[in-house]
Amino acid sequence: MHRYERLADHLRERIQTGYYRPADRLPSVRALAASHGVSLSTVQHAYHQLEDAQLIEARPKSGYFVSPQRERPLLPPAGRTAQRPVEVSQWEQVREGTCVLPDASMHNLGRGMPDIDAPTLKPLLRALSRVSRRQDLIGLNYDTLHGRPELREQIARLATGHGCRLHPDDIVVTTGCHEAISIAMRAVCEPGGIIAVDSPSFYGALQSIRAYGMKAMEIPTDPDTGISLEALELALEQWPIRAIQVTPTCNNPLGYTLSLERKRALYALAQRFDVAIIEDDVYGDLSYAFPRPATIKSFDEDGRVLLCSSFSKTLAPGLRIGWIVPGRYHERALHMKYVGTGATATHGQMAVAEFIREGHHDPHLRRMRAQYQRNRNLMLDVIADAFPASTRVSYPAGGFMLWLQCEGDIDTVALNERLMAEEIRIAPGVMFSATGKYRHCLRLNHAVFDAEIAHAVMRVGQRVTEMLAQRADVARPETA
Amino acid sequence: MHRYERLADHLRERIQTGYYRPADRLPSVRALAASHGVSLSTVQHAYHQLEDAQLIEARPKSGYFVSPQRERPLLPPAGRTAQRPVEVSQWEQVREGTCVLPDASMHNLGRGMPDIDAPTLKPLLRALSRVSRRQDLIGLNYDTLHGRPELREQIARLATGHGCRLHPDDIVVTTGCHEAISIAMRAVCEPGGIIAVDSPSFYGALQSIRAYGMKAMEIPTDPDTGISLEALELALEQWPIRAIQVTPTCNNPLGYTLSLERKRALYALAQRFDVAIIEDDVYGDLSYAFPRPATIKSFDEDGRVLLCSSFSKTLAPGLRIGWIVPGRYHERALHMKYVGTGATATHGQMAVAEFIREGHHDPHLRRMRAQYQRNRNLMLDVIADAFPASTRVSYPAGGFMLWLQCEGDIDTVALNERLMAEEIRIAPGVMFSATGKYRHCLRLNHAVFDAEIAHAVMRVGQRVTEMLAQRADVARPETA
Repeated sequence: MHRYERLADHLRERIQTGYYRPADRLPSVRALAASHGVSLSTVQHAYHQLEDAQLIEARPKSGYFVSPQRERPLLPPAGRTAQRPVEVSQWEQVREGTCVLPDASMHNLGRGMPDIDAPTLKPLLRALSRVSRRQDLIGLNYDTLHGRPELREQIARLATGHGCRLHPDDIVVTTGCHEAISIAMRAVCEPGGIIAVDSPSFYGALQSIRAYGMKAMEIPTDPDTGISLEALELALEQWPIRAIQVTPTCNNPLGYTLSLERKRALYALAQRFDVAIIEDDVYGDLSYAFPRPATIKSFDEDGRVLLCSSFSKTLAPGLRIGWIVPGRYHERALHMKYVGTGATATHGQMAVAEFIREGHHDPHLRRMRAQYQRNRNLMLDVIADAFPASTRVSYPAGGFMLWLQCEGDIDTVALNERLMAEEIRIAPGVMFSATGKYRHCLRLNHAVFDAEIAHAVMRVGQRVTEMLAQRADVARPETA
Repeated sequence: MHRYERLADHLRERIQTGYYRPADRLPSVRALAASHGVSLSTVQHAYHQLEDAQLIEARPKSGYFVSPQRERPLLPPAGRTAQRPVEVSQWEQVREGTCVLPDASMHNLGRGMPDIDAPTLKPLLRALSRVSRRQDLIGLNYDTLHGRPELREQIARLATGHGCRLHPDDIVVTTGCHEAISIAMRAVCEPGGIIAVDSPSFYGALQSIRAYGMKAMEIPTDPDTGISLEALELALEQWPIRAIQVTPTCNNPLGYTLSLERKRALYALAQRFDVAIIEDDVYGDLSYAFPRPATIKSFDEDGRVLLCSSFSKTLAPGLRIGWIVPGRYHERALHMKYVGTGATATHGQMAVAEFIREGHHDPHLRRMRAQYQRNRNLMLDVIADAFPASTRVSYPAGGFMLWLQCEGDIDTVALNERLMAEEIRIAPGVMFSATGKYRHCLRLNHAVFDAEIAHAVMRVGQRVTEMLAQRADVARPETA
């Protein structure tokens, strides 16, 4: 890490913890350089980074100030969910969203695609090319079932960042986080069994529950405080639930991070009812707060947590490299890995291991976290301008997804169909529910934000506004 | 295809169909050049290729002769299988075989690893490197659920080689044939359902049956004529079987190719009992006979055949690129693909598509077919020398695997343990059975054959001979 980055992280923490408050004046460049024993240009570099992340702003001839507190949009309320385990539907919507080929003319605001065009990712392409030219041909050979040792070593090293002490042999490399979740579910639950999920929830996990003939017990989840532990406890008392599937850090789609205290309480519940926890941490490394929050896995003392993650959101999804730390379910997980794919593609694993070993991972993450936080703010501004005032929006703690709730009778599946003609895609809320709830909600991707994307978001807002007006037109004669 | 290759294929066919018989003298170079209107060097090139495949031999000053009929070893008899559906065990053996990291010092005769060191594969490495340098970054992006269009186009084109007319949209790209088989089983059968399999059978398919809570109905299979249609018919009459899983072309592990007539009869049985066929064709393109045999899928008129294959045996397993043609089960297969891995790694797909499009696939296959056929013969010679005379050996029609049956009480699991100290691995027969039968059998890989491998095979033979002698020593006092 460069000096200026260390300094920027230090200042960021002081802003995030409230040491410097909104609109506070920051120390002068000269003063900070003196107090930290660094050069003037190092301080300037650090301030530019924070400016870029919209945490501070420069005022001509006055110096640097902490950005004024943004007016946070109203958060959506926690959803109402079924009071019993349900079968999962909505495959048609998910299918449509995932069968679309990446297309330059399409503004796909719906998919969970990170920005892969960052200069900090270039060394990964060089590593891929280098691996192809290796004389030992390891990249063409079957990998071992667990995954390349050099990659598992790097994953174990990175895991200390969320408080986990892992041995490389605790880790099984998978074909994306999809395979990790799919393995986890089959490792802990039989067909017909019940899995508790946060709601709204990642549609991939819901569709796995469907595919393996299980049932989903949806637990209401608040966009600020996260999954309702009270509702979860009640469900655990009433139903023979086998596992709790959650995304507690930088949740998809709601964006919240469960507090450490609540993470511990969730773990205690799992212990009390002797159920497994499937912890999806795929966005965890994109937490805007630094250092990143700890995983539930970090205080797992009896191996009941199956940590699932991948490089799909932090590096590049096309590599399909994820991993699972299956704890006490290691042997079952290995069997599921074997029958599912035999082994993970070798080549990409080697390139990612090189990329991390050469020190490119941390700078890339720092850049992306700042970019995604800045883009969140910019997109919130556009939403505030373009959407009806009644629209509620999440305020993510990390990642690159916003969750919007429109007025009750706006149908976002119909909205998506209308947007097709304008070459814009959103993710309709129904995808995130087992039974097609959240029809008035949608998810937007803010990984990339430029004039074109801003324009696309405005178009979405206009269409929602129109739909609301049409509804009013229809409603008026009836009430007249 | 070069002229000399066309000529070689023509001559190969005439030898294989018996037009030229063993020890027959072939036309002189001059005569053949005149009758085919090609140059002398073209004929010489073609003869060298056939010589390389050990189909013909040059005798100084006499010309070329068809190689004398090899004394074919005695084939193992068809196995005796259980008369009812069974649960699948043997995971420990499979796990041990697949968790081993490729290691230069180890002679792994057990694994299904092709020769990846052929010069005809070099363009694939170049394509991989080229794809990494593409500016459009498609290789880093999520692929569509079905797989890259340019790859599916090439797979559809190649499928005409086994008699299939496919549209690219009939194909779903998978993470190796493992995922294809895993998808196929879940698409046609519920947990608790029964799948009929040839026996011995590919352990990956058997372990899938286990993982999804299904049962295997093992059908006795003859190393020459293939799966017993009579036994299969009886099983279909007696049990509610949902699908027949077979590897009818260049079978793994037995090496047979089911005749076209018997393939048709198998399909008719599937129609009569309304069950699906899961056709594993992963070794089909490595058939020594040219043109290669048709798949069952090629005469599938109602979409009940799910064709599963990959480039793992023909190109390189580390890429993990396979495919499924799921016929009438397309929608279910897509769902299983989605929950299993989300999409297949993009990068390798693009490189393979380029490799095929640029015309490198056919020359590579021609080379490998000839190499594997020659190596089969060479390894059979070593086996005849080094193993006890009572050993029976398969006579494969393609691929790079030999199946050996030792005397009844030779334990090949114990044999494998003994060989560990000598850094040699074999695949014990128990892996190929649901219930640990074939303990006196083993599978050997002849993809690569050199002095070292020959030596390793001799060591295996010596150990078997010793075990037989020890048994005799133990047995003698008892009978005295």
